[in-house]
Amino acid sequence: MTARHPASAGGDDTPEILDLPIGLHAAGSRRETDSMGAIDVPADRYWGAQTQRSLIHFSIGDDRMPKALYHAYGHVKKAAAIVNGRAGRLPAWKAGLIQRVADEVIAGRLDDHFPLYVWQTGSGTQSNMNTNEVISNRAIQLVGGELGSKSPIHPNDHVNMGQSSNDTFPTAMHVAAVKAVHERLLPSVRALRRAIEAKADQWRDVVKIGRTHLEDAVPLTVGQQWSGYARQLDQAADRATRSAEGLHELAAGGTAVGTGLNAPPEFGERIAAEIASATGYPFTTAANKFAAQGGLDAMVGASAGLRALAVPLMKIANDIRWLASGPRCGLGELHLPANEPGSSIMPGKVNPTQCEAMVMVCIQVLSEDSAIAFAGSQGNFELNAMRPVIINDFLHAATILADACAKLRQYCVEGARLNRYQIEDDVNRSLMLVTALSPVIGYDKASAIAHKADDEGTTLREAALASGDVTAEDFDRIADPAVMVGPAERRG
Amino acid sequence: MTARHPASAGGDDTPEILDLPIGLHAAGSRRETDSMGAIDVPADRYWGAQTQRSLIHFSIGDDRMPKALYHAYGHVKKAAAIVNGRAGRLPAWKAGLIQRVADEVIAGRLDDHFPLYVWQTGSGTQSNMNTNEVISNRAIQLVGGELGSKSPIHPNDHVNMGQSSNDTFPTAMHVAAVKAVHERLLPSVRALRRAIEAKADQWRDVVKIGRTHLEDAVPLTVGQQWSGYARQLDQAADRATRSAEGLHELAAGGTAVGTGLNAPPEFGERIAAEIASATGYPFTTAANKFAAQGGLDAMVGASAGLRALAVPLMKIANDIRWLASGPRCGLGELHLPANEPGSSIMPGKVNPTQCEAMVMVCIQVLSEDSAIAFAGSQGNFELNAMRPVIINDFLHAATILADACAKLRQYCVEGARLNRYQIEDDVNRSLMLVTALSPVIGYDKASAIAHKADDEGTTLREAALASGDVTAEDFDRIADPAVMVGPAERRG
Amino acid sequence: MTARHPASAGGDDTPEILDLPIGLHAAGSRRETDSMGAIDVPADRYWGAQTQRSLIHFSIGDDRMPKALYHAYGHVKKAAAIVNGRAGRLPAWKAGLIQRVADEVIAGRLDDHFPLYVWQTGSGTQSNMNTNEVISNRAIQLVGGELGSKSPIHPNDHVNMGQSSNDTFPTAMHVAAVKAVHERLLPSVRALRRAIEAKADQWRDVVKIGRTHLEDAVPLTVGQQWSGYARQLDQAADRATRSAEGLHELAAGGTAVGTGLNAPPEFGERIAAEIASATGYPFTTAANKFAAQGGLDAMVGASAGLRALAVPLMKIANDIRWLASGPRCGLGELHLPANEPGSSIMPGKVNPTQCEAMVMVCIQVLSEDSAIAFAGSQGNFELNAMRPVIINDFLHAATILADACAKLRQYCVEGARLNRYQIEDDVNRSLMLVTALSPVIGYDKASAIAHKADDEGTTLREAALASGDVTAEDFDRIADPAVMVGPAERRG
Amino acid sequence: MTARHPASAGGDDTPEILDLPIGLHAAGSRRETDSMGAIDVPADRYWGAQTQRSLIHFSIGDDRMPKALYHAYGHVKKAAAIVNGRAGRLPAWKAGLIQRVADEVIAGRLDDHFPLYVWQTGSGTQSNMNTNEVISNRAIQLVGGELGSKSPIHPNDHVNMGQSSNDTFPTAMHVAAVKAVHERLLPSVRALRRAIEAKADQWRDVVKIGRTHLEDAVPLTVGQQWSGYARQLDQAADRATRSAEGLHELAAGGTAVGTGLNAPPEFGERIAAEIASATGYPFTTAANKFAAQGGLDAMVGASAGLRALAVPLMKIANDIRWLASGPRCGLGELHLPANEPGSSIMPGKVNPTQCEAMVMVCIQVLSEDSAIAFAGSQGNFELNAMRPVIINDFLHAATILADACAKLRQYCVEGARLNRYQIEDDVNRSLMLVTALSPVIGYDKASAIAHKADDEGTTLREAALASGDVTAEDFDRIADPAVMVGPAERRG
Repeated sequence: MTARHPASAGGDDTPEILDLPIGLHAAGSRRETDSMGAIDVPADRYWGAQTQRSLIHFSIGDDRMPKALYHAYGHVKKAAAIVNGRAGRLPAWKAGLIQRVADEVIAGRLDDHFPLYVWQTGSGTQSNMNTNEVISNRAIQLVGGELGSKSPIHPNDHVNMGQSSNDTFPTAMHVAAVKAVHERLLPSVRALRRAIEAKADQWRDVVKIGRTHLEDAVPLTVGQQWSGYARQLDQAADRATRSAEGLHELAAGGTAVGTGLNAPPEFGERIAAEIASATGYPFTTAANKFAAQGGLDAMVGASAGLRALAVPLMKIANDIRWLASGPRCGLGELHLPANEPGSSIMPGKVNPTQCEAMVMVCIQVLSEDSAIAFAGSQGNFELNAMRPVIINDFLHAATILADACAKLRQYCVEGARLNRYQIEDDVNRSLMLVTALSPVIGYDKASAIAHKADDEGTTLREAALASGDVTAEDFDRIADPAVMVGPAERRG
Repeated sequence: MTARHPASAGGDDTPEILDLPIGLHAAGSRRETDSMGAIDVPADRYWGAQTQRSLIHFSIGDDRMPKALYHAYGHVKKAAAIVNGRAGRLPAWKAGLIQRVADEVIAGRLDDHFPLYVWQTGSGTQSNMNTNEVISNRAIQLVGGELGSKSPIHPNDHVNMGQSSNDTFPTAMHVAAVKAVHERLLPSVRALRRAIEAKADQWRDVVKIGRTHLEDAVPLTVGQQWSGYARQLDQAADRATRSAEGLHELAAGGTAVGTGLNAPPEFGERIAAEIASATGYPFTTAANKFAAQGGLDAMVGASAGLRALAVPLMKIANDIRWLASGPRCGLGELHLPANEPGSSIMPGKVNPTQCEAMVMVCIQVLSEDSAIAFAGSQGNFELNAMRPVIINDFLHAATILADACAKLRQYCVEGARLNRYQIEDDVNRSLMLVTALSPVIGYDKASAIAHKADDEGTTLREAALASGDVTAEDFDRIADPAVMVGPAERRG
Repeated sequence: MTARHPASAGGDDTPEILDLPIGLHAAGSRRETDSMGAIDVPADRYWGAQTQRSLIHFSIGDDRMPKALYHAYGHVKKAAAIVNGRAGRLPAWKAGLIQRVADEVIAGRLDDHFPLYVWQTGSGTQSNMNTNEVISNRAIQLVGGELGSKSPIHPNDHVNMGQSSNDTFPTAMHVAAVKAVHERLLPSVRALRRAIEAKADQWRDVVKIGRTHLEDAVPLTVGQQWSGYARQLDQAADRATRSAEGLHELAAGGTAVGTGLNAPPEFGERIAAEIASATGYPFTTAANKFAAQGGLDAMVGASAGLRALAVPLMKIANDIRWLASGPRCGLGELHLPANEPGSSIMPGKVNPTQCEAMVMVCIQVLSEDSAIAFAGSQGNFELNAMRPVIINDFLHAATILADACAKLRQYCVEGARLNRYQIEDDVNRSLMLVTALSPVIGYDKASAIAHKADDEGTTLREAALASGDVTAEDFDRIADPAVMVGPAERRG
Repeated sequence: MTARHPASAGGDDTPEILDLPIGLHAAGSRRETDSMGAIDVPADRYWGAQTQRSLIHFSIGDDRMPKALYHAYGHVKKAAAIVNGRAGRLPAWKAGLIQRVADEVIAGRLDDHFPLYVWQTGSGTQSNMNTNEVISNRAIQLVGGELGSKSPIHPNDHVNMGQSSNDTFPTAMHVAAVKAVHERLLPSVRALRRAIEAKADQWRDVVKIGRTHLEDAVPLTVGQQWSGYARQLDQAADRATRSAEGLHELAAGGTAVGTGLNAPPEFGERIAAEIASATGYPFTTAANKFAAQGGLDAMVGASAGLRALAVPLMKIANDIRWLASGPRCGLGELHLPANEPGSSIMPGKVNPTQCEAMVMVCIQVLSEDSAIAFAGSQGNFELNAMRPVIINDFLHAATILADACAKLRQYCVEGARLNRYQIEDDVNRSLMLVTALSPVIGYDKASAIAHKADDEGTTLREAALASGDVTAEDFDRIADPAVMVGPAERRG
């Protein structure tokens, strides 16, 4: 046994780094090996034996591990290489080479080399090894070495140095999830919110009938109604933001079971700092690695933030499609853009299709959130082995929510118009203006007036005057919808 | 029509307030009326016509609206009476009388008079009216009036003054939920966490085998393992706390549809301030009442906080029961207290019953959380009419979680003991100590040693020395479990 | 060691059976014992030491094991006593005495003596022992013996003879579930279905506008629409019936782990036959006891039958409340009975409260069904230790579904009336009658006509004639709603 | 207006059908039109304007409508063409041409021309129109016509003749779902079941310790245990089969709202008969089209059949991974095949990765089943507009379940081996053999013996003999594991 660190074996003489474009121009197959032996892999792919075995053993459906997870893993590998290089555990040129390839991973330039299925080992080890193998072979290519030789850059000893799947996979999950929330989901939600707020402003003084229990209620303005939607989205975006904060704690540094075996002191802190620096998010090392690796509670918590968006989005989408119902036999308050023919059999039909897509997306997100919570509860001892389903469902849910918000905004909300005739007509016919009389004549008399108007099919005013409980003058002053909606400053 | 405010009609002369104990000593029934007409109610109950109708129409199962909801409603009614009295909308004695009875409601002294079912009107109107009716009749009793006369304290005009079910029911939901989280759930969780932390301290230096994928892994200390549990609960308690913050915004003041019709200016602000003062929580009026009444997003958000606890609690309970599996044919690391005979047929059996109860509770909480999210998505326009199922499931989930934590702590965690013989034996037999050799001899050689030991049934040490890759001295120094678990300061 | 069977020890001399009413007229407490030692129990209760321990250790929330489970357990104990007595394993008088008390259990006369919580041991052992202890002590009372002496009727050796909780608890679950489905749920569903069908018949020729995507579509009759509801319930009731068939297989006879240890040959077959005879359902012994005890798949399957009802019931309840929306600013096709005042602030408001209760019940049922499936997946080896949550949620869901159907029928469907004016007006104004022209003039021209009418606010007829594509005579013949709904025999 | 049927306009002269391979060898774009106007589509694609609009408006995530849905739609279009041609509503050559192209759709040869997203209009209209457009243009190509001209085969007037998306989309859903269950899922489940049964046979006489509550219990044979798994899968496959029977009722013939407007009499019956004939499944026309189109209850019911498989599969996968836990510090009864290196850091580790994949798949299936039930509850009036999410989740769940069964069988079950040493050792050390003494010496004495052995760390035999309650001879005869597991004919 040599005293030399095996990771640096044969690696002291800095080779020339070739400036080769990504790609392996070879046909057929190549032999790769791991501790199970040798196996053929496609000659035009960078991956190695473990990736190939996983492809064979886990071809379940056609769900592939999201590319965003690998991009995040690129950050982890890069950070580890920087830290290992800086500490001298890796020669500078090896560390630099790994960083360079990791940058290609981060940029998505090696996406074609990450083919693995979601339904694989529960630790994500196979995706970690896929990353290690691809970086190893790409690095080997860049120094003119032999693919599959694991030299001079070994997938385990160098690319995975100081790491385990058990700590780095959840680290990559967190990084990918944070980026999905902040860079894809929230911008889309906020744009939708702004479009809704613009409508609230535009329609702030249009008095309409309110509805509770689906039944006619007292009036409000359209602006007030839409201000409620904007507020719901504001608060939901805030919930999503805060729910994702737990993701800032990273497991890296815990290695196999949380003790940090084979990782040097401060490894976790330094990796977190590098990733924070590279991504701009305040990542730190998890205070307790046993919690961070035995559970995935931060992911479950962040998923609740997705759900927090889906719940009001479903309500808003339902409201919009009901308000637009008709055009003649529904509520008919809203005209939605006619983006496409609505029916293959009914000519001229326009349907609230964006709202339907959003409702379905919300149902899907709610169910994926449930899967995440279920999976989050199924950890054992030092590992929650349900990681792939959790990260896959999370990134999927964030993506379809983001895109559905963008489409709803662009193809439904922005082009929505009011049917002012219908809105005004409804206000005038409603019986619930009687509520304004209640503080003056009492609930019981007011109730009798409303029932009388309903039974006799008269206007509320007619029934009120017939009751003798209120004068025409008082009625007109008190039961005035424009007054009932409150002062202007409360209108959204 | 008189210019006088109807609420003050006939209420100017302060009657004597009698100091009568709670209770109606009458048999048979009494007539009560509402806008639908007259109906008989039990003579020994304070409730009125609307409560009675609801009892008839909604006797679905045997789920009753939680008493905690009424206690919270007492706070709402009291606050409204204070604010209305202070502003002169109610005579001082009426306001005082309502407050006095509201205090009885808050204290649970009128619990027997709140019989309604959960499955009722989706707005909770019937429970609001139950509260109004009981306060009205109890107040009438206290001034020697005629029950059911609605005079001098009218359930709608006085007790409900400036309010609607649409704004007060969600207000009561928030108050009840905040109290459940802070006064019942979190103390119980924190006590469990402390008990777990005490175990982590007690066992901080006991080296045990780690397990990932259920398979033998590298060692950690029992204290490290349990420190992970404590940390998970810490973070979950923090999530529950922060998830409940959205509940501090109260809808009161929005009345029927959020515009505040029939409520005076600043009514919401003042009610929130009174409730905050009475309860000690930082309640404020919701910035946008249309959002607060059309949705129940804050409840869904708070429910995610319950789920955040259930997920790690399920993992911890599962870990404990697996660690205690045996006594002879399982993992056998832990002895749990034998609280009861385990089997009706197998004499002497001891089972991890507290863990099983906790797991079932967690499953129930996860499903109730799903129901809350589903219901939260089903609002329409100015009202989410799924309130009863949401508050019922929330309070139920919080309660069973709290109690299950208390029982798990008292009857399982506190009395748990280690089987040190088994723990030590496992560490000594494990093959995964080979991991410590990996940075020295490389992953591939280390792997070969482990496989050799497994195949040949030898100890790891034997296989390592036979390989020639490591000396006995190096092996004993490097593959030392006590070193592999890391320095003492990392042990929980 | 004696050669005599211990169960018959000291039991050969038949004592006099006293005809004592149920009840223990004693104050304070009594000592009871089990293998853990002695413990005080309330002197006026029949239960013994194990029940008392469970009460102490598992006071989690206030969910009690459903009484229906104990009634079913009475059937199991009775059947076992019959079989054991007939085979001579129990003296005839002991067998007869256990049967007599079991009959009291079945009839619910001992309900006050089954206090245990749902959240207990996952096998239900404590509820089995509660049953054994109560039968033992009640039997002891009937022969003038000493309570707690376990003589002459021992809870384990006699009442539990040949049984384990592991086989009898799921047996009782199946019996209770079958009875809940057939005796409570299905009758209520069928009554609702008949009420709906009566409406379909009553309204079979009333032409109304159809709605797809919430948007106006081609006409159908109200009878056709409601015939769809009736059909959905028919099929759902059929699904519930067939989903419950798996419950007919009983685990009894498998004892502790499925091998039938300590049970004589044919024990399972005979118990099943006795229960079948007593209840009238075709119970048989499970073909494979390892499956029947390691899993609870038949319960999960039966729960899918509850869900099969909740799904269409939610749709029907939603349809009814939307059709009744208004009265003036909604769809307004339906008038629902005004069972109660709808609002505490809006006088005269009538709300679709029964529909809301039904929707909430359906959400709850869906979530309880999810809990059952989740729990069903969590078995390990020879036992699924999630039984209490499964049977509790199942019986709860069946009960609230049954009651909600009864209330919806009685207080909503039966009293519903059509607003024929609104219905007719809608048909006349709709643009989608254009669909009938499509096979004649082609989809593209028909589409242009509909768009023209919509844009210009004219009737469809006006736009059609203006297009020149159709004559007035043809229009009136083809776009006739009464013809478009199809021949009379298709109307429900 | 002409008396001629528009569908036959210009279609009387049979053109020559060219035998052109699939494919459009054009670059750039082509103009297509619909009632909204003209739009460019890729020149090398058969789809038309409505497909193109959907691609623009609904690019949400990357979930595409499953190809299997289009293959099933091919069956619907083919059947309609046959029925329409036979009745003379379509000229024979047009009907034949549509059939020919529909056969290409069925065979998957036009898959590249069905690009639409899942998250689209809730009725599936856009996918119906995609099918109509592709068939139209491919047919036009085959007669040498002008793409996009809709002549001589019009997407609406001919391909969609007598149909609506509202009836044909659920028809295609049913056909696709039936094929997925019978042709993909059940064969895979049954193969797994056979592999498990083979193991049960192989291991039928190996006595092992049973475990209930994870704790040592009385013995059974490995064959008995695995026979339970086989039985669970048998019953689950039966449930899946029966749950899918409701799918045999097809909505086709109901057209827009269920009345069959624009479809000739018996159209539904005949289409169903054609599809039945083509596929070999007993499809019939739905007895009530309002139920079949307003709800998707048969899909929800069929999904319960997927869940019925996921629940026991999760239990079985968990059992296997726990039985294989170790190799030295777990239960260690089973050796699983070492398909791949288990860890990136721990050399030589073998993990139960197939079981983990299966558990994750089951969690996903359970959540997708929940989404289907939720979506199934959200119909309104004459349409459930949640169809795409339902069919997508159903087909996805069926697919991953099927594949996970295949992988578990091939890479885990078939290669599993017993660790007979561990199994035998466990039986010998267990204390629960005491149960067999209980019928002889009574539960209480048996219990004392077990506790004594546990406390003193002796064997059960030692403690039993020391108690004086049993002779050595009796002990050896009664507490014999080989006898306790029951007669040979009960062993699976």
